[in-house]
Amino acid sequence: MALIERYDKGAVRHLTLNAPEKLNALSDEMLAALIAECDALEADDGIRVVTLGGAGKAFCAGHDLKQMQAARQSEDGGRAYFADLFARCSAVMQRLQQIPQPVIARVHGIATAAGCQLVATCDMAVAAEGTRFGVNGVNIGLFCSTPMVALSRNAPRKHVFEMLTTGEFIEATRAREIGLVNRVVPEADLDAETEALATIVAGKLGAAVRIGKQAFYRQAELPLAEAYAYTGAAMVENMLDEDTSEGITAFLEKRKPNWTR
Amino acid sequence: MALIERYDKGAVRHLTLNAPEKLNALSDEMLAALIAECDALEADDGIRVVTLGGAGKAFCAGHDLKQMQAARQSEDGGRAYFADLFARCSAVMQRLQQIPQPVIARVHGIATAAGCQLVATCDMAVAAEGTRFGVNGVNIGLFCSTPMVALSRNAPRKHVFEMLTTGEFIEATRAREIGLVNRVVPEADLDAETEALATIVAGKLGAAVRIGKQAFYRQAELPLAEAYAYTGAAMVENMLDEDTSEGITAFLEKRKPNWTR
Amino acid sequence: MALIERYDKGAVRHLTLNAPEKLNALSDEMLAALIAECDALEADDGIRVVTLGGAGKAFCAGHDLKQMQAARQSEDGGRAYFADLFARCSAVMQRLQQIPQPVIARVHGIATAAGCQLVATCDMAVAAEGTRFGVNGVNIGLFCSTPMVALSRNAPRKHVFEMLTTGEFIEATRAREIGLVNRVVPEADLDAETEALATIVAGKLGAAVRIGKQAFYRQAELPLAEAYAYTGAAMVENMLDEDTSEGITAFLEKRKPNWTR
Repeated sequence: MALIERYDKGAVRHLTLNAPEKLNALSDEMLAALIAECDALEADDGIRVVTLGGAGKAFCAGHDLKQMQAARQSEDGGRAYFADLFARCSAVMQRLQQIPQPVIARVHGIATAAGCQLVATCDMAVAAEGTRFGVNGVNIGLFCSTPMVALSRNAPRKHVFEMLTTGEFIEATRAREIGLVNRVVPEADLDAETEALATIVAGKLGAAVRIGKQAFYRQAELPLAEAYAYTGAAMVENMLDEDTSEGITAFLEKRKPNWTR
Repeated sequence: MALIERYDKGAVRHLTLNAPEKLNALSDEMLAALIAECDALEADDGIRVVTLGGAGKAFCAGHDLKQMQAARQSEDGGRAYFADLFARCSAVMQRLQQIPQPVIARVHGIATAAGCQLVATCDMAVAAEGTRFGVNGVNIGLFCSTPMVALSRNAPRKHVFEMLTTGEFIEATRAREIGLVNRVVPEADLDAETEALATIVAGKLGAAVRIGKQAFYRQAELPLAEAYAYTGAAMVENMLDEDTSEGITAFLEKRKPNWTR
Repeated sequence: MALIERYDKGAVRHLTLNAPEKLNALSDEMLAALIAECDALEADDGIRVVTLGGAGKAFCAGHDLKQMQAARQSEDGGRAYFADLFARCSAVMQRLQQIPQPVIARVHGIATAAGCQLVATCDMAVAAEGTRFGVNGVNIGLFCSTPMVALSRNAPRKHVFEMLTTGEFIEATRAREIGLVNRVVPEADLDAETEALATIVAGKLGAAVRIGKQAFYRQAELPLAEAYAYTGAAMVENMLDEDTSEGITAFLEKRKPNWTR
């Protein structure tokens, strides 16, 4: 049984974290599996959108605490392992934003600590009603410092600070209010609603979405003038795609485009 | 008939994009007209606030697609034209934030692609109920990369990503929730309500508003310590204005200020 | 009678601005008292959380305008004094984010100009129902340029611009919607509810909260890759704390942690 289940339907790839007995913890093995999935996606022109969910009761409960505690047995008390672990985990998070396909989190049950970070990191998120989100490492003495990098780039500062220092949960509807998820749906509809959203995006011109996702995160870190220079160049490349020309012509002629890809 | 209609009332200038047959598209001519209006405003101390609306059924539907497609006939397939077009359009957007007067978008009908970017770029926006906002270039194969620069500096990341990749519209009330517009009013009241807001701002000390608008966008791109050093200097200049001294004295004496300007 | 009242209850320090006859204005003396409180807090390992309120009818109404106007009598018309004043005020605001303890604003009545900035600067804020917030210096000809540094790092751009240029107030519930406060409670419950929130945070491992608060503001100013490198290092230090090891072990063993600090 694979640690991450993969199921393709048309141009949409559904990935499911599959370690339900560990609440899909981001163990060394799970992080490696996520990197392998990113490698595969980067090389796969046929897949245009990805959804990412979790098997069992929860989406993801964060790091694998047993594995982390075991690392304390080494001579350095775990220092080298911890440094490597957070570097690998942060690499996974950044990689999910670097792959060309939009990634939609499909969230249910709980999403805590690095699991909440994973939701914040995905380009979009659909959550089942009742899902609970928290960056609650502070409750066990481990402040969610890396998760806050992702969370604070999604939601207003004071609400994020409250979650981080109280360790309290918020529910799905509140998560939508503060910008952490896009849509909240009945749990029974979670897979179908996430797939419906993915299918809409998969129906767009793939080259345009690739250009756009890459530009989205790059321009966010640039001053205004540089952001405009960078995205202007992206739009020129986009315009010179023959399928884009066909898309615009079809729109002007009030017909559907005949895209080659 | 001017491409942009101009109507001054007291210290408020009402500008109206006036190419209703093209849904007020940002053609080469319209971009040039907007730059000319910015030039005029920068030189005009008598105008303190600007409102910007659109004639006909829509506020603005984005670029002039027919004009863009025609540019493909040139030897380079349009590359030079497109690069110049996006540079000019981005210059207009940045210029609107550089002119000393606050600019209030007066939005009705639809505001799509670069038209939605124009709303995001204005300092404030009042929208008629039912107005639809979208960055829907992705529907025709042209990702709204430059509009996302403005939109992502107004609204939370995941909601912006959804609009960009699904091409779906949001309505005015939702636009207010995510930070894209300030006020939503019945369409019949749009002009009056926008003018009322403009008149309030026009009643403030012009020198203070000028200092403030400029500082608003500059400090937003600075790290905290630099932002404080910069705005501290702005406040010193503001304090040394004689009208500001009169404004503070009048407040302490519980009377209206006698401002010279 | 001290200019800032201090009352410790367990590991929570309640500070109260105590110049009600001046609506707790941030006079030279009040700014100096705030710096002294920050100095004391930085040296005090026993205090884990701070609340900050105001005595009398208002939380804080901003700068001491009479004191500012008096400075105009000097040979330079006040220039040197104003530069120094805004530098000192900005230093107080930055210092509140640099001290190791989370600071929770306890807000009632009005919070205007630099008083609103103080709310925005605190890590969290609880507001009494009916509290009015404004950055209304523009009404007297003095744009709230330094307050906007703090406010624009809390709330969406267009809403902040509206407050700054109209000088209008928003009420507590709206302040929560835009991210300026965390919780709104009946005025009679303000002290108790703020203390309850403070007590929750004070119950966490102090070392973890210190690491987290410091990392919160530092990472916010870094590009994504640097933010992850920085917070990853913070998590390694956090993991190597013996109390954190005990906290994780206790969680895995489903018991309460026995923390030494």
